Amino acid sequence: MFEFEIQKQHTASRARLGAVTTVHGTIHTPAFMPVGTQATVKALSPEDLKDCGAEIILGNTYHLYLRPGHKLIEQLGGLHRFMNWDRPILTDSGGYQVFSLNDLAKVTEDGVTFRSHLDGSLHLLSPELAVEIQQALGADIIMAFDEPTPPDASETQTLKSLELSTRWAARCRQAHTRAGQTLFGIVQGGMFKSLRTESARQTIDLGFKGYAIGGLSVGEEKGVMLELAEHTAPLLPEEAPRYLMGVGTPDDLIDCVKMGIDMFDCVLPTRNARNGTLYTSRGKVNIRNARHRSSDLPLDPECACYTCTHYSRAYLRHLYVADEIFAMRLNSLHNIAFFQTWMSGIRRAIADGRPLDWRFPESEDSGNNGS
Amino acid sequence: MFEFEIQKQHTASRARLGAVTTVHGTIHTPAFMPVGTQATVKALSPEDLKDCGAEIILGNTYHLYLRPGHKLIEQLGGLHRFMNWDRPILTDSGGYQVFSLNDLAKVTEDGVTFRSHLDGSLHLLSPELAVEIQQALGADIIMAFDEPTPPDASETQTLKSLELSTRWAARCRQAHTRAGQTLFGIVQGGMFKSLRTESARQTIDLGFKGYAIGGLSVGEEKGVMLELAEHTAPLLPEEAPRYLMGVGTPDDLIDCVKMGIDMFDCVLPTRNARNGTLYTSRGKVNIRNARHRSSDLPLDPECACYTCTHYSRAYLRHLYVADEIFAMRLNSLHNIAFFQTWMSGIRRAIADGRPLDWRFPESEDSGNNGS
Repeated sequence: MFEFEIQKQHTASRARLGAVTTVHGTIHTPAFMPVGTQATVKALSPEDLKDCGAEIILGNTYHLYLRPGHKLIEQLGGLHRFMNWDRPILTDSGGYQVFSLNDLAKVTEDGVTFRSHLDGSLHLLSPELAVEIQQALGADIIMAFDEPTPPDASETQTLKSLELSTRWAARCRQAHTRAGQTLFGIVQGGMFKSLRTESARQTIDLGFKGYAIGGLSVGEEKGVMLELAEHTAPLLPEEAPRYLMGVGTPDDLIDCVKMGIDMFDCVLPTRNARNGTLYTSRGKVNIRNARHRSSDLPLDPECACYTCTHYSRAYLRHLYVADEIFAMRLNSLHNIAFFQTWMSGIRRAIADGRPLDWRFPESEDSGNNGS
Repeated sequence: MFEFEIQKQHTASRARLGAVTTVHGTIHTPAFMPVGTQATVKALSPEDLKDCGAEIILGNTYHLYLRPGHKLIEQLGGLHRFMNWDRPILTDSGGYQVFSLNDLAKVTEDGVTFRSHLDGSLHLLSPELAVEIQQALGADIIMAFDEPTPPDASETQTLKSLELSTRWAARCRQAHTRAGQTLFGIVQGGMFKSLRTESARQTIDLGFKGYAIGGLSVGEEKGVMLELAEHTAPLLPEEAPRYLMGVGTPDDLIDCVKMGIDMFDCVLPTRNARNGTLYTSRGKVNIRNARHRSSDLPLDPECACYTCTHYSRAYLRHLYVADEIFAMRLNSLHNIAFFQTWMSGIRRAIADGRPLDWRFPESEDSGNNGS
């Protein structure tokens, strides 16, 4: 089962309010997906995630294939059961991690040969294996296996790469048989608008129920990312959800929702939480900062999350400085709640026909926030 | 407010079923207190602790004095509010940590001079300061500042040390003024029964509402610990709660409850949890062990905790091996739940007049548990 309903078209932008429905439930779009790389969103329980308002999470094929292994997870009833998450899951194809975690990954027509970052063992990840792994994991939405083009690739290289990704996408379609699970295609094309157009055309020709924009937010300048996303989004079918992979900051989310993007994922809220960088309605807060030492204020007075309603900044700073595990949980919980609340504010504005014209405030810690 | 009610005397042993009531609520005894060294029981939220059945936790004066500082915690409303724990708290006096974390701690009549393990700064912890810190933290039960005698001290040294502890205990009584907070005395006397008797006499002479047995479980053999506890417990007033500090294993808890001990604390469940050693109704389980790799069983089928009712051994092993923060929480939660359930089984047996004749099973992992 997979349905995408557009409930309202924004008047002031290309943004749309919608809902993706899968067998594990409905995702209100535009949606932000917390990243649960190793069958856990770091430091959070499924209940924490639900309390934050998360309706879907992302799992990483590359990591789960290597450890604990997709066959083991399948044997234990699939990823949902394994990690006790009964809402929708999207898994990526592993293509991105194969390259980002392996300097020596080697591409052939067959797939990508790489060594495990865990034990150095040799593997060949192919479109067929990427689909097999994702079918075993049993996510609601799975991604085609593609070659992410490096941002500094030439036009010729990029064209070659996107054409390979198209052939791989066709093989993924062929390999994909699991019912109740939906395969998304991914548009590549690197830093070239014309090639983004070409990749979109080829990917749409194959026919998917959802389309991702891949290969962005990989080191290029922010303006370039936004320009390419803005160029690509309207090339994709209106009636299918559009997913911008690996994006982004709160402002990126607003900017890209206005282009008509429906789904996002990013490690930013959880990774920053573990570094003590917290998102608030007043800007970023570095909780390590000495100015929070004796602050009895909540991290964000406008936030209704467990962290903000139960603990002071002084306590959060103390836990962080004392290297306490509970700091990771409270910080991650807040940042995920912030991102979910941010998205729900965006959805409300679209519903009400109000402009998406606000920005994430400058950092609350001026000049000394270490971030 | 402080009341200790003995509800039932065990027929088959000196064990007693009781209840300690403080302004923050009632503790059913015999009770096990999880250790929350730095204003957090490592990896657990207050709600997790309550779900496990914890009715009281312990805080460490030494650590909180050095970081974030007792004055800061007082200014923020006390330790209960700071850490969001509204049930009873007991704080130790700092005496034990001063010695265990500082090789060069120097004792005079005044107190103990030591260097912070955090920044090397010089401090003098005296009976008066230990009380001042504990009054600022605002625990329900606070401990007299004593000198823990090393287990290898001679009889002469031990006598000198216990007499110093008595003089310090008197100074603590003098310094203690905070209403709604109860000061316990601590019996020392090292490894000598006659000196345990002498210390008990001197401490009881000062008059406290509760008595601890200190200086045990500090490296001496298990048999010696049990023998000294058994010698000392009946020397203490029937009508006051007896607290055996730093003990112990599940079997220790049974053995010492039978001597008439009412309260215990130990880092064992939380520290072992973080090392992957888990207590179950079938014995200790080392969750790192490869034999759990594909086990769909709960950690402990007889346990009703969140970990055991939501996750498989395979998942717990995966999280541990993958070094995921969530492993620390699930493991700690289970071990604390196990200890609380263990104590509640002990209390039920006393209530029913059944013998306390069961033992913690041998390790479920035979021969290969790394613990």
